[in-house]
Amino acid sequence: MKLVKPIQDLYDEEFSHCYGCGRLNKEGHHLKTTLEGGITISKFTPKDYHIAIEGFVYGGLLASLIDCHGTGSAAIFYARENKTELKEGNTPRFVTGKLNIDYLKPTPLGKELVIKGELLVVARRKVKTQINIIVDGVVTVKGEVTAILLPDNFGK
Amino acid sequence: MKLVKPIQDLYDEEFSHCYGCGRLNKEGHHLKTTLEGGITISKFTPKDYHIAIEGFVYGGLLASLIDCHGTGSAAIFYARENKTELKEGNTPRFVTGKLNIDYLKPTPLGKELVIKGELLVVARRKVKTQINIIVDGVVTVKGEVTAILLPDNFGK
Repeated sequence: MKLVKPIQDLYDEEFSHCYGCGRLNKEGHHLKTTLEGGITISKFTPKDYHIAIEGFVYGGLLASLIDCHGTGSAAIFYARENKTELKEGNTPRFVTGKLNIDYLKPTPLGKELVIKGELLVVARRKVKTQINIIVDGVVTVKGEVTAILLPDNFGK
Repeated sequence: MKLVKPIQDLYDEEFSHCYGCGRLNKEGHHLKTTLEGGITISKFTPKDYHIAIEGFVYGGLLASLIDCHGTGSAAIFYARENKTELKEGNTPRFVTGKLNIDYLKPTPLGKELVIKGELLVVARRKVKTQINIIVDGVVTVKGEVTAILLPDNFGK
């Protein structure tokens, strides 16, 4: 499957306000998730104020990145497994059901973080992914995200 | 044990820059955690832009609140179990090792969130807590936080 744009740029407008990844949220992080060789990828450089203790990134931000990368990855993998062509107006939207995060080592502040996602399981309305945060080639945080498909009539 | 101030107001200056709960972080959330009747409590009202989808709070923020409430609660419970008097310059500082979050139901935006923590286990350098987010008396998110004690010489 080829993804012409980051998944967040394909979501319906009403689902594009998320603080972590919504293109229409002026204050948010604007995470953008693409697919390369079967792996989902986002990149993010934390601000200086996203600090935990001196020199290291705040764990809550790292959890947020895994959360949003997980729901974006879920939409991509779900579409791929169901042979759905992803395009504007035809994009499944997932929300997080469970989030399990292991902080393996402190994540240094001031560097670009690469967030990579792999598919674990696709079910009828759920997708489970393994999400890693990588700095300079080293995995500092490992996450597992169980994402739930929003029904088509959600909020209508 | 009586806690004279929120735990975050007792942390050493060098450990008070956390985006989630540091009193010296100008951009951050300034979470404040107290102890009432054996339960730790923080309160937080998300901003309008902390949105996931219309009407509901962004899951990444909820994870952040559980993370910071978990490390603050760990310091309080650890001191209580070790009969340490918590005061400025004499406060253990924990960081998150593992974070497990169950989003039980969507958390409505525009309301005050109450975050409550209970002790599960205290070990020599680890504390495990159960953290719930409650809105209008209903638990919307359940978390388990394993927090790790920073060594006294950390960063020195």
